Amino acid sequence: MSAEPGTLRPGGRTARVRAAVLRAAGDVLAEQGFAHLDLADVARRAEVGKTTVYRRWGSVTALVADLLADMAEQSLPREETGSVLGDLQANSRLVQRTLADPRQGALFRAVIAAAACDERTAQALRRFYDVRVAEWAPCVEQGVQRGELPQGTDAEAVVRAVSAPLYYALLTTGTPPDPAAADRAARAAHAAALAGVYATGR
Amino acid sequence: MSAEPGTLRPGGRTARVRAAVLRAAGDVLAEQGFAHLDLADVARRAEVGKTTVYRRWGSVTALVADLLADMAEQSLPREETGSVLGDLQANSRLVQRTLADPRQGALFRAVIAAAACDERTAQALRRFYDVRVAEWAPCVEQGVQRGELPQGTDAEAVVRAVSAPLYYALLTTGTPPDPAAADRAARAAHAAALAGVYATGR
Repeated sequence: MSAEPGTLRPGGRTARVRAAVLRAAGDVLAEQGFAHLDLADVARRAEVGKTTVYRRWGSVTALVADLLADMAEQSLPREETGSVLGDLQANSRLVQRTLADPRQGALFRAVIAAAACDERTAQALRRFYDVRVAEWAPCVEQGVQRGELPQGTDAEAVVRAVSAPLYYALLTTGTPPDPAAADRAARAAHAAALAGVYATGR
Repeated sequence: MSAEPGTLRPGGRTARVRAAVLRAAGDVLAEQGFAHLDLADVARRAEVGKTTVYRRWGSVTALVADLLADMAEQSLPREETGSVLGDLQANSRLVQRTLADPRQGALFRAVIAAAACDERTAQALRRFYDVRVAEWAPCVEQGVQRGELPQGTDAEAVVRAVSAPLYYALLTTGTPPDPAAADRAARAAHAAALAGVYATGR
């Protein structure tokens, strides 16, 4: 490790420890699922002292909550393509690539499975989606401002509608979505929004 | 128990044992999740001999597969309302009532969570949805024949599109869908189908 001044940010070691631990936790979740997540094992995989991991995260559910917070922070900012359909397609492709990625897809399935029986994980998962939906909702709001979609369209509902069929396919049939499914999800949400299905008061 | 001739169908006892065991298995799944499912415990709850349960089902995954097969058999036949939107709304309300029911909603979450890490359960779950989708697809086919939807509309894709947002809400945010969400899901799938999103070759 370099000791040159300026190459090591304050908090650099803390940030590196966190990155290594979250990476290891994600690996275990993707490979073996929530039931096999164990702080001592994560510490070993991350090559971090067990005491550090216990002191900093304390429990498996706190570790998963921090992993989801980090995933939300790390997730890509939305694209702006100039049209609401283009923006929804960009969002849809991003969700599709994430769920079709073997590690990421397995990680999401594991966390969603854990959320079914652990309330703290369920809360962390809700926060993750709240961040993602808030990131992409402005593309729908801009579409309304440009007159592409009806006034009063619920932007968050449209963004969630794009993701729904992609997650549904993965979770109920184990089928990772392909680019054609992503395109169809975006066009379906757009068509429904255009028809006023997501406009409040209708 | 009555011994009068004619009151006891052949196979009646076998059917009663199966019903009691599947009921108990569903209770454990809904209350405690897949990880807590245990054949001896199910036998005790069902008041059936342990040997019978082990001989007939043999494993927890075989028991869950049989439970899903029974749920598909028991599930209601589709309604015919005379319009494709009406039929999709009937389907959507059926899915919504199932997922919003505390026992059934918890049961589905438990089985979907188990399918994430058990291939035999995943296969049984896929078969369950195949049966349900095949039951409801004719309402879309009839809509196409009546000229309500574009030629070449993928009927199964439309039926799955109705369910997707209801399952998505339950699985990712823990929110049981309400009747308004069911209505919106049906109208969204209908609007997208009308716009040709589910028509093959588009």
